[in-house]
Amino acid sequence: VTELKDIGELGLIQGLAALFSPINPRVLKGIGDDCAVLDGDGESLLLTTDILVEGVHFLKGTDPARLAKKLLAVNLSDIAAMGGRGKAALLSAALPPETPLSFWETLASTLAEEFAGRKLDLLGGDTSSSPGPIVLNLVLLGRADPDKVVYRAGAGANDLVYVSRTLGDSAAGLDLIKSPELKIAPDVQKYLRAAQETPRAEEELGPFLAETGLVTAMIDVSDGLTTDLTHLAEASGLGAEVFLDSLPVSDQVRTLGKLLDLDPVEWALNGGEDLALLFTVPPEKEFDLKQRVGKTFNRKLWKVGRMTSALGLAGVTGKTSKPLTGRGYEHFRSEKD
Amino acid sequence: VTELKDIGELGLIQGLAALFSPINPRVLKGIGDDCAVLDGDGESLLLTTDILVEGVHFLKGTDPARLAKKLLAVNLSDIAAMGGRGKAALLSAALPPETPLSFWETLASTLAEEFAGRKLDLLGGDTSSSPGPIVLNLVLLGRADPDKVVYRAGAGANDLVYVSRTLGDSAAGLDLIKSPELKIAPDVQKYLRAAQETPRAEEELGPFLAETGLVTAMIDVSDGLTTDLTHLAEASGLGAEVFLDSLPVSDQVRTLGKLLDLDPVEWALNGGEDLALLFTVPPEKEFDLKQRVGKTFNRKLWKVGRMTSALGLAGVTGKTSKPLTGRGYEHFRSEKD
Repeated sequence: VTELKDIGELGLIQGLAALFSPINPRVLKGIGDDCAVLDGDGESLLLTTDILVEGVHFLKGTDPARLAKKLLAVNLSDIAAMGGRGKAALLSAALPPETPLSFWETLASTLAEEFAGRKLDLLGGDTSSSPGPIVLNLVLLGRADPDKVVYRAGAGANDLVYVSRTLGDSAAGLDLIKSPELKIAPDVQKYLRAAQETPRAEEELGPFLAETGLVTAMIDVSDGLTTDLTHLAEASGLGAEVFLDSLPVSDQVRTLGKLLDLDPVEWALNGGEDLALLFTVPPEKEFDLKQRVGKTFNRKLWKVGRMTSALGLAGVTGKTSKPLTGRGYEHFRSEKD
Repeated sequence: VTELKDIGELGLIQGLAALFSPINPRVLKGIGDDCAVLDGDGESLLLTTDILVEGVHFLKGTDPARLAKKLLAVNLSDIAAMGGRGKAALLSAALPPETPLSFWETLASTLAEEFAGRKLDLLGGDTSSSPGPIVLNLVLLGRADPDKVVYRAGAGANDLVYVSRTLGDSAAGLDLIKSPELKIAPDVQKYLRAAQETPRAEEELGPFLAETGLVTAMIDVSDGLTTDLTHLAEASGLGAEVFLDSLPVSDQVRTLGKLLDLDPVEWALNGGEDLALLFTVPPEKEFDLKQRVGKTFNRKLWKVGRMTSALGLAGVTGKTSKPLTGRGYEHFRSEKD
């Protein structure tokens, strides 16, 4: 019998996309981007959803306040990657009946704080008991200027590929948490744990990049650079080169790499959940974009590659180029892989 | 330690509602009705979500086609109960990696058929592996004429309470499925099983009732008549009398009641998932409403009670009136109850 792990998450989603092509003219984008986009009379309505499952996305015993922040952040990141801002949400929760009330109260009050600070509304939801893991599902509605929405499709050949922050911090943080016996400086530990446990979405940068009109395609790095760049490249009908020698890796990730005898570039290429923005800009607009971002946010951006007419991903080191295959997180992967 | 089962689902939702009062002026209704309502420039956007958990809402081994239909029906019912029509959806699914691919394919293709027949769009979603039960979450967006949306609040004292179909069929169907040794006529069996396994939402009647402008408040019967009438009454700041002698009970439910030596009125009062519409109409508009529904749908409606200034629910038999307490489905109820 063929099982889900044999086709993987991508197979599952591609199957759905084939079954459901948009029907109503208001649907500007259905399955296949960070958000769905609906025409909403003068503005675009963005919709995204993320499910967090205990034992898959978080460990039993995880602090509910962190969980609430992460649940919101992963959804805000999808909205930001289209150039929009979050406005309202729906929450579904399946919880074992013996869940301590304090768990729920902390989760709910943390969400309430995070929502209030952003003027986000919780519109409703559904709750159920669960005979197994805690399952949380958040749906986030956002709004964007219809002329400024940035899709995965839209990159041109030779467009430069940028990311908004260092890569691999979250994945390295997960490996750190899995090695509690490791002796490592408290500040490095704190930095990496925070990257994994309370990642922050690029809520301000996403809409700003869209507003400039200089960015041709965008996605958030949630499954890993190779996986997410592949999504962007395929949606744009292109391939991409990744500049392996200039991937942005934090000093903290380098420190952990030395301790664990691992190449930090592996985390940067394949580690998920960084919630960095990954976007493309035509070479002639690169300078302008970097200037504007530097001026407004006092931040730099990292060039990590270039879009190519040749399909597939290639890793470039010096003058050597080799095919690069994604090894980002795969939900239904067989144990044997 | 206080646990979720000690406060129950209602406690959980009331806690949320207290934390999240609407912020944006576009939010016409947040937590506390069958759908949230957003102002959408000339029309109202309705939003609802329902989560189905294996072992709670359906048994392991349930036909995925039935599951797809039920998942859609419970959401369509919420939209219908506000007077709207479904337009688009988001699907989240957590599935064990060893789930047969055929399960997913049947679920997805059935949803696709149901969606296509209604010109509903699937806009996107999220998938994850699950270390335990299958969990499905559907979010449904609907649209309604902003002047015609019907809320739970809005009933007046002395308004008459109606339901759109017989009550208790779904709950009786569940009890039938739990007693496979029972000898019962095939047509009765088929009717009751279908009521439980593939309940149908009042997709046409809901918007029609709203359109008449004669209905003052509405909710769908998903948790049982007493529970849902309590919700409607409390939202309207009223109580209600239930006419116990005239509750609509199907012949099939009566037949099962005789076989199991159970009072069918118990199912009618406390059985969930009938997806009937429960609504109120002022006495002077009762005749007009019944006429219009009869003419358009060739259907009758059942009068089951009356709204009262006195709070709480009362069960009325002849001239006797006794307090009535809800015993509908409660997710987090302790085993001891």
